[in-house]
Amino acid sequence: MSNKAQRRLNQIKNQVDSLPSPSESLNDERLNPSFPVDEMTHFLNGGKRITELKNKFMLQFERDPAWKLSDQPNLSLPQIRERTLNKARSLISYLITEPVNVFKLRMEVISYIDPAFYTRFGVHAGLFLGAIQGQATPSQMEYWIKKGAITLNGCTGCFAMTELGHGSNVAALETTATFDEITDEFIIHTPTLTATKWWIGGAAQTATHSSVYAQLIINGKRHGVKTFMVPLRDPVDFKLRPGVNIGDCGKKMGRDGIDNGYIQFTHVRIPRSYMLMKHTQVSRTGEVKAPALAQLAYGALIGGRVSMVIDSATFARKALTIAIRYGAIRRQFAPAPGKPETKILDYAIHQHRLLPLMAKSFALHFSGRAVAELNKSLQKQIESLSKGTSEQANVLESLKEVHATSAGLKAFGTWTTLGLIEECRQTLGGHGYSAYTGLSSMYQDFAIQCTWEGDNTILTLQLGRYLITCYRQFLKTKGKLAPGVQYMALSSAPFSASASTDEVCDPVKLAHAWGVVAAAAVRQATQEFESSLEAGLGQDEAYENCSVERLKAARMHYHAFTLSKFVEGISRAPAPLQPILQQLCQLHACNVTSEHASEFLAAGYFTASQLHGIQSRVMKLCQAIRPQAVNLVDSFGFSDYVINSPLGRYDGDIYRAYFDLVRQNNPQEARPPYFESVIKPILTSNYDTIEGPELEIDEALGSQEEDLSAEDDVDTPVSAVGRPNNE
Amino acid sequence: MSNKAQRRLNQIKNQVDSLPSPSESLNDERLNPSFPVDEMTHFLNGGKRITELKNKFMLQFERDPAWKLSDQPNLSLPQIRERTLNKARSLISYLITEPVNVFKLRMEVISYIDPAFYTRFGVHAGLFLGAIQGQATPSQMEYWIKKGAITLNGCTGCFAMTELGHGSNVAALETTATFDEITDEFIIHTPTLTATKWWIGGAAQTATHSSVYAQLIINGKRHGVKTFMVPLRDPVDFKLRPGVNIGDCGKKMGRDGIDNGYIQFTHVRIPRSYMLMKHTQVSRTGEVKAPALAQLAYGALIGGRVSMVIDSATFARKALTIAIRYGAIRRQFAPAPGKPETKILDYAIHQHRLLPLMAKSFALHFSGRAVAELNKSLQKQIESLSKGTSEQANVLESLKEVHATSAGLKAFGTWTTLGLIEECRQTLGGHGYSAYTGLSSMYQDFAIQCTWEGDNTILTLQLGRYLITCYRQFLKTKGKLAPGVQYMALSSAPFSASASTDEVCDPVKLAHAWGVVAAAAVRQATQEFESSLEAGLGQDEAYENCSVERLKAARMHYHAFTLSKFVEGISRAPAPLQPILQQLCQLHACNVTSEHASEFLAAGYFTASQLHGIQSRVMKLCQAIRPQAVNLVDSFGFSDYVINSPLGRYDGDIYRAYFDLVRQNNPQEARPPYFESVIKPILTSNYDTIEGPELEIDEALGSQEEDLSAEDDVDTPVSAVGRPNNE
Repeated sequence: MSNKAQRRLNQIKNQVDSLPSPSESLNDERLNPSFPVDEMTHFLNGGKRITELKNKFMLQFERDPAWKLSDQPNLSLPQIRERTLNKARSLISYLITEPVNVFKLRMEVISYIDPAFYTRFGVHAGLFLGAIQGQATPSQMEYWIKKGAITLNGCTGCFAMTELGHGSNVAALETTATFDEITDEFIIHTPTLTATKWWIGGAAQTATHSSVYAQLIINGKRHGVKTFMVPLRDPVDFKLRPGVNIGDCGKKMGRDGIDNGYIQFTHVRIPRSYMLMKHTQVSRTGEVKAPALAQLAYGALIGGRVSMVIDSATFARKALTIAIRYGAIRRQFAPAPGKPETKILDYAIHQHRLLPLMAKSFALHFSGRAVAELNKSLQKQIESLSKGTSEQANVLESLKEVHATSAGLKAFGTWTTLGLIEECRQTLGGHGYSAYTGLSSMYQDFAIQCTWEGDNTILTLQLGRYLITCYRQFLKTKGKLAPGVQYMALSSAPFSASASTDEVCDPVKLAHAWGVVAAAAVRQATQEFESSLEAGLGQDEAYENCSVERLKAARMHYHAFTLSKFVEGISRAPAPLQPILQQLCQLHACNVTSEHASEFLAAGYFTASQLHGIQSRVMKLCQAIRPQAVNLVDSFGFSDYVINSPLGRYDGDIYRAYFDLVRQNNPQEARPPYFESVIKPILTSNYDTIEGPELEIDEALGSQEEDLSAEDDVDTPVSAVGRPNNE
Repeated sequence: MSNKAQRRLNQIKNQVDSLPSPSESLNDERLNPSFPVDEMTHFLNGGKRITELKNKFMLQFERDPAWKLSDQPNLSLPQIRERTLNKARSLISYLITEPVNVFKLRMEVISYIDPAFYTRFGVHAGLFLGAIQGQATPSQMEYWIKKGAITLNGCTGCFAMTELGHGSNVAALETTATFDEITDEFIIHTPTLTATKWWIGGAAQTATHSSVYAQLIINGKRHGVKTFMVPLRDPVDFKLRPGVNIGDCGKKMGRDGIDNGYIQFTHVRIPRSYMLMKHTQVSRTGEVKAPALAQLAYGALIGGRVSMVIDSATFARKALTIAIRYGAIRRQFAPAPGKPETKILDYAIHQHRLLPLMAKSFALHFSGRAVAELNKSLQKQIESLSKGTSEQANVLESLKEVHATSAGLKAFGTWTTLGLIEECRQTLGGHGYSAYTGLSSMYQDFAIQCTWEGDNTILTLQLGRYLITCYRQFLKTKGKLAPGVQYMALSSAPFSASASTDEVCDPVKLAHAWGVVAAAAVRQATQEFESSLEAGLGQDEAYENCSVERLKAARMHYHAFTLSKFVEGISRAPAPLQPILQQLCQLHACNVTSEHASEFLAAGYFTASQLHGIQSRVMKLCQAIRPQAVNLVDSFGFSDYVINSPLGRYDGDIYRAYFDLVRQNNPQEARPPYFESVIKPILTSNYDTIEGPELEIDEALGSQEEDLSAEDDVDTPVSAVGRPNNE
């Protein structure tokens, strides 16, 4: 090569070298934070002390070989199951020694490190133990704790509610628990295939006991679904108990670490005392004593849903951390020939994809906080009810409100986050499809949240039903409205047709406007409901008739609630955080309003040009927040171990880390294992077609099978076929 | 048990038994088809002959053990890779012996039987061979066909375009191909980590050769990205060629059957004749002859995108088949105590979830057909151009139109179907999360379509750019508009404020209205673009400035195009099919209009009460179509083998089939393999905490580490922690 050529090549090389490195690209983003990043972390966590504890836990798990994450994509199903349960061992020591609130925080950190393990452990410590705690008498509780129900020492539990043919409608479960007065036992039985307990986490391989939901039958009479403790396996040799048939539900979309199984009981006998009898009691002679306040049992479901709202916010932040950091490093297309390529996060369209989602993650955060507060105060009320210091009617009102609110937030929150994860995944381009970059598995793990612990659609309808009830109550009593639905009294939007863009984009005013829109949706659903009643339909049919309107009312309520909690939440934030939170809140308010603009336009709450102003504001706010995007995701405070994606690394050295991770997980091999069996035969095949002797009869009689319709072009060359997605 | 009790239990049992069985539930749906189901199948397939051939292929694959599908979820990565390539063997015989159009149809069937294999085979037969076909000179073509490029005999190919750091911007690829005049060779080189070829399908384990995209450099001067044939492995012993480093990209979200790999070239030498020189030519002395019409090479990309539109329709139908059949069998909640539970598809909300998606699948079908026609006529034009019988300018105009249209349809079509699959998956409740019910893997396999062969967002922006160009052209020339964008001349909606619901719900009128709305969106984007130009910005910056508006214009164009093709398509359908197609078309029109109602309201194209009429019509049409839902999915004509989901079986025996499939794939084991290593130690652990001797110093000096903020309730019992999603 000539000297001149060499020089030119060097020039080209230098030009490439003069690009900031990936790490420099990311660090540039951190030079001018507009808010104190650490303080935001503490604010989101609920205090500096909590940040410190979370950091401590993240580090402990990172260093513990049992908690290795980086090789998970390549583990087989048995390997991942083994590794999952193995984590329980190290955790039990913490469970026993740590103060409860510290251990709870540890579990929260675990929830976003390893969702499958979190579920496996939670099935025991939450559902199984929770059933005992919520439904056992004191002596029963003592019995099961002695059996090892807390320490897993001799007793690992699972929770057998769902059946192959029955999910949301718990009352229709088929499994029977028939009282045998002679032996003082219940006979647990699976009468049909569809009664098979299904999806039971921990049942397939690891549980010794199960809390089983079954129809209580005494003397042929049904008394509804109750909970029974049924031993599944011998804790010593782990053999199945007689009459218990268990299998593995196998591969799932995600969370393969948890061993979901199916259980069939064939006339399995348990002592009468194995029915949990805190509420309903069955006497020695088969008399049934029903509880005074059955509804209170539903209180136990709320905690799970509240936590899924918080989960939704957490996973949204985790997904955004990966997508935003990658967007601030990845470069694509140059503004002009010879110039370095532009960071993809500097494109308006990329900002428009990600930054409204960033704002949504904050909205989810504040809603989660709010509903957690609601639940805390409800649980206190329930406690004081048992002490006789609060009124039953009030507690039931609160229960209904928190139940409905948490149901709706769980549904819309998990839907929001699932969509957000997928959008973030797609912003990684092809790399989002890799199992090593974090978002494909996050989607697969998170997807179950939309259908478990209450199918989202059914939960939204429950919220809708509650809203109609509230509104009808309000019409009757004029004025008395639960705190969460005060907006139902609103009927007109806060701005006039001449209001300026600043005015219509004011989050406080938009929150008010959302209240008005939500109220209108509730009114519409209620009218639909009442007109069905007037037409002579029963209550259930009337609710069915307005289900589409109910879902819409629930959705509008969700946005109104979320936005108002965002606005409220900011007021409690430290002053230095308020400006950026205000920007995010306004972005969220404008974005969600723009997404549902037809509601506002149809009711005449704003004009087309005001809508245009709101939409322009979304873009301006995206630009304004863009420089803080990396600082914001830094403030989420996840360590690289927790993020578990080379593309979301704090130091920005993404390509090196990605390459190394893929190489570590897939050692290079001289030849693939199927070279001899498959590849070689293909490379050496001799495709002689089978040719018979020429026959003397007329070939025209032969089959015309291969002729297609005249539409088809038969002249396409062979080499054009088989192109992926070739038409 | 008493005789009386036994009688009552029998009564209960009989009550359950009196429910129609799952199979009866499904067969009931088929009693009164409102249209000839078989005729619909032929219509969708494009003729009875094609239906027959598809049925033949489905049966052939079903019976061929190499094509077993039912155990795929439990295969390891090496197993699934081996099985995938093994299918190539049986296919090559067909490739050689079948007429091209028949084989193309066979490949179409394969595309929805095994997307991973379709991709692996397509990488060779489409991309690798396609590169040769499109870019090789006749003698080069002959050379590579002799090498085995068609039969895979001695030559299995892959297509190395994408790099670790470079995807959509092909012009910025880093891999170099430097001409060495002395030896008459090119030196292929990977200069940096980010230049590593990445995601190369077939590279990891199975390809002997690759068509490599690299920067042509001669005497230090860059001549742009060209295609070079680079041997990777020895076809006899399969050893890597010197200087070639290959690894495996490993696990992905889906399509694990295809062995995506990475390739690094370190000064690999190939003869000059291994550069494909149909377009650009490099002489012995390094002179470069550039082609006259480089743009025509883009024509080759269109086929892939057209086929992805058709894929989108096909996968939508496959997903709907599973969801609709399950919805017509699954029962949940009884209308009154003691009554049998209701089919979930009989709930308005379930219909509202699925039936507009059914209509969307038909819309996708007609759009796919339309763009395939467009492409066919374009390819004919390109052919006749080479014969000198058509005008270059016209061909280029068509090329631009088809390129933009197919890009937009690919983007919005794949997004639509990905969302549709997820919605269908969620309608299966918890069973949608199983790997054996078809929709989780369908989501995972399909997700890549949104980012490969052109990232969707970038494709929509390309369509937006084309629309702006058309509109500016139109303003200049007044009147001359390409067939697909005729609507740009429209400016007012076809109905007045007093128009009846029937009028505004008329699909023909709605299609017109969509044209008006699309035209307005294009106008707005153009105005934004031009005002940037007027402000002195360059063209690229001006396009960047209107990217959000461009995306919106593209989206509106997509809906206008799709709806108009739906309306047109019906007119070509056999008369007995027209009524149901009309219903579906109206449902689609009303639904998509309702989803984008703010566009119509903002422009005053209809009133709030007209919108309300449209929304009510959506619900009425869902009810009207509901009785035909199963007949419609039957008409899609997939065999049970192809559906590959026990919940989507034709005979409706879903629970039995699901149970059997799960059991077959997960044989029951006496004890899990990790009983001794993990489970036993947990069950027998003795959790003595470490306790030291009591010290005489003041304990108050000790750490307060476990205290959290005052907010935390420290009195929560241990047993409440760890609940899955417990707050």
